[in-house]
Amino acid sequence: MDISHLLTSHSRNMEASLVRELLHYSQQPDVLSLAGGLPDENLMPAYPELKQLTDSRQYGPSEGEKDLRECIVSIVAERGIQTSTDNVLVTNGSQQGLDIVSRLILDESSTILTEQPTYLAACQVFKLQGAKVQDVMSDAEGMSVSALRDAIEKHHPKAVYLIPNFQNPAGHCYSLERRLEIAALLDEKNILLIEDDPYRDLCYDNVDLTPISTLIKQAPWLYMGSFSKVLWPGLRTGYIVSCDAFSPYLVKVKQAVDLHTNRLGQSMITQFFKSGQYPDHVIKLQKAYKEKRDVMAEALNAELGDLIEFSLPAGGMFFWVKLPAGVSSQLVLTEALKDKVLVLPGTPFFPCKSSLDDSFLRLSFARVSPAQIHQAITVLAKVIRQLV
Amino acid sequence: MDISHLLTSHSRNMEASLVRELLHYSQQPDVLSLAGGLPDENLMPAYPELKQLTDSRQYGPSEGEKDLRECIVSIVAERGIQTSTDNVLVTNGSQQGLDIVSRLILDESSTILTEQPTYLAACQVFKLQGAKVQDVMSDAEGMSVSALRDAIEKHHPKAVYLIPNFQNPAGHCYSLERRLEIAALLDEKNILLIEDDPYRDLCYDNVDLTPISTLIKQAPWLYMGSFSKVLWPGLRTGYIVSCDAFSPYLVKVKQAVDLHTNRLGQSMITQFFKSGQYPDHVIKLQKAYKEKRDVMAEALNAELGDLIEFSLPAGGMFFWVKLPAGVSSQLVLTEALKDKVLVLPGTPFFPCKSSLDDSFLRLSFARVSPAQIHQAITVLAKVIRQLV
Repeated sequence: MDISHLLTSHSRNMEASLVRELLHYSQQPDVLSLAGGLPDENLMPAYPELKQLTDSRQYGPSEGEKDLRECIVSIVAERGIQTSTDNVLVTNGSQQGLDIVSRLILDESSTILTEQPTYLAACQVFKLQGAKVQDVMSDAEGMSVSALRDAIEKHHPKAVYLIPNFQNPAGHCYSLERRLEIAALLDEKNILLIEDDPYRDLCYDNVDLTPISTLIKQAPWLYMGSFSKVLWPGLRTGYIVSCDAFSPYLVKVKQAVDLHTNRLGQSMITQFFKSGQYPDHVIKLQKAYKEKRDVMAEALNAELGDLIEFSLPAGGMFFWVKLPAGVSSQLVLTEALKDKVLVLPGTPFFPCKSSLDDSFLRLSFARVSPAQIHQAITVLAKVIRQLV
Repeated sequence: MDISHLLTSHSRNMEASLVRELLHYSQQPDVLSLAGGLPDENLMPAYPELKQLTDSRQYGPSEGEKDLRECIVSIVAERGIQTSTDNVLVTNGSQQGLDIVSRLILDESSTILTEQPTYLAACQVFKLQGAKVQDVMSDAEGMSVSALRDAIEKHHPKAVYLIPNFQNPAGHCYSLERRLEIAALLDEKNILLIEDDPYRDLCYDNVDLTPISTLIKQAPWLYMGSFSKVLWPGLRTGYIVSCDAFSPYLVKVKQAVDLHTNRLGQSMITQFFKSGQYPDHVIKLQKAYKEKRDVMAEALNAELGDLIEFSLPAGGMFFWVKLPAGVSSQLVLTEALKDKVLVLPGTPFFPCKSSLDDSFLRLSFARVSPAQIHQAITVLAKVIRQLV
């Protein structure tokens, strides 16, 4: 049956996420995967006992549970964001936060600016709304301020989407100076900032993490967080904190799209925070992931240091590796898979066509053991050396 | 801060659901609410023990858990729908199912046909996509076939949205003859059916419940179900079963909008079905709700039988009451609230302007006790008699 006449032009052209498409390979027990963005389940706490939780069986509020929103107010206050529960919306992971914001502000007439490279699933929802996604040159300190100024003047964007801390995929963390410059430029141009901050607690070095949202004086902003990287991604719980004007609109979209987020998940996360276990849990995560990061850096240097380029990510889950000239990331994927190692080509992280887009791999160290990291990088080195 | 320039034309015009807006009244302990669509929490089973469940902490598949999809295949097989897990998508309640389908097929150029009256939150998502919602005259046996034919020929709709069993709000249950006629017409015109069936297990009388999707021979169809009315709405778990061609598109939209549905909720629902408790649970629900329905019918007849019109719903949660000529449902809401009784005006259930739209109340008997039903209808009778 042909149903293509029923689809909208945006949904007809929708691409599935390469990461999700590769998921079935990564679930094969003999495949070593560096491809996904999955945290290590060995580091996830057990769920709290059901009897400790409030009754969550009935329908709940679209905004999210009040006690979780109070908890989020405290969490973001420590980051410098002063807000109230009225400006917190609980979402099904921060992915839904991106979708809700897209529904609210983007249509065929809109342009949104992103880093180059950027999070592929953000582009997916932006494009599903028909928006034009324009990437802006970015370096190790963050998005280029002059390129951003040029892009704002040229494209008149609805918003700028940034992942300032341990960016997915590039691993970059913005310098404080860059954060200040970008905030000042957004204020000057009155451009909406969408700040996505899911990785900030996975911080291994001493870097600045000031939310750009707190540096903005007048421009509108939306700040998105997630519990998926630090607690239980299977519970799909994230949040949007907004400047005042946005809240009523965000709640109405949430109401329309699924009434509210699963209450049991919200209750579990609240309970975990209230129990006081979170600070120690983060220390444990940071220690374990830092060790894996250092093992991967060492293995990459030892096996491929003469051929590839990368910088050490100060946090997060990913190395962003530039391949030797002429080596195709797609080909590396195919060849490495023959040796049961799954890597993710950088291609889908480039929203606009780029001559660079087949030259990168995103390698995750989060879910593999130090021994597996060595094993995978050995295979990768063999494959890359054969392709040079 | 004015952000209206940032909103899309569809989100700017979005109305909040009156039901959700009234929720805060219904949560006041001294207010008796007949307004919501909330099931009775006293009839909800306890959650299964966590230790009986599979580990759900990690990210999961966008389609939903395989064992829940297998379970849904069995559930719908009993209803006459032969399908496979490939054609089942788990959603955050059937509300998200409506949203995902809307994202896929509706845009500014689309018209969708609905019953008159119809489920207000469906119209909310259809309109958020910019689609035109056109209602079609409906009676106690379902949507008028001749009116549907005329509307198809006039409006060239993308789809027809129907709630054939214990419709929200009108409580109607389609006759088998009407189901067959509608299926034949949709086949003749090759129009997509979106069949929404959340209430079917809340069945109190002997009526036909054949899914129209099973009577269709060639036209495309989507069938939507929910666990919210029979188990735990707070877990936000529903599903879409589709004819073959739709599945890959539905999964891609799901992936884009929130990656996947909360896994713990899915696991709990699967466990409940696998435990074999469901058949007895449904008998318990039917018995309790039937009693409440009969109490409400008796009270309405005794107190208001000479003034109002309604038919006895054979299932579901709602009475759809036509007020005496000249009595405004909005005024009944306001006046009854002074006596701490909350009722829902029919207005928001009319997607198109109608001379009838201020003449109905939707009264839910699901969450109130027999004594409270008597008390609320007594207040309602007093209010209506004062307004006649």
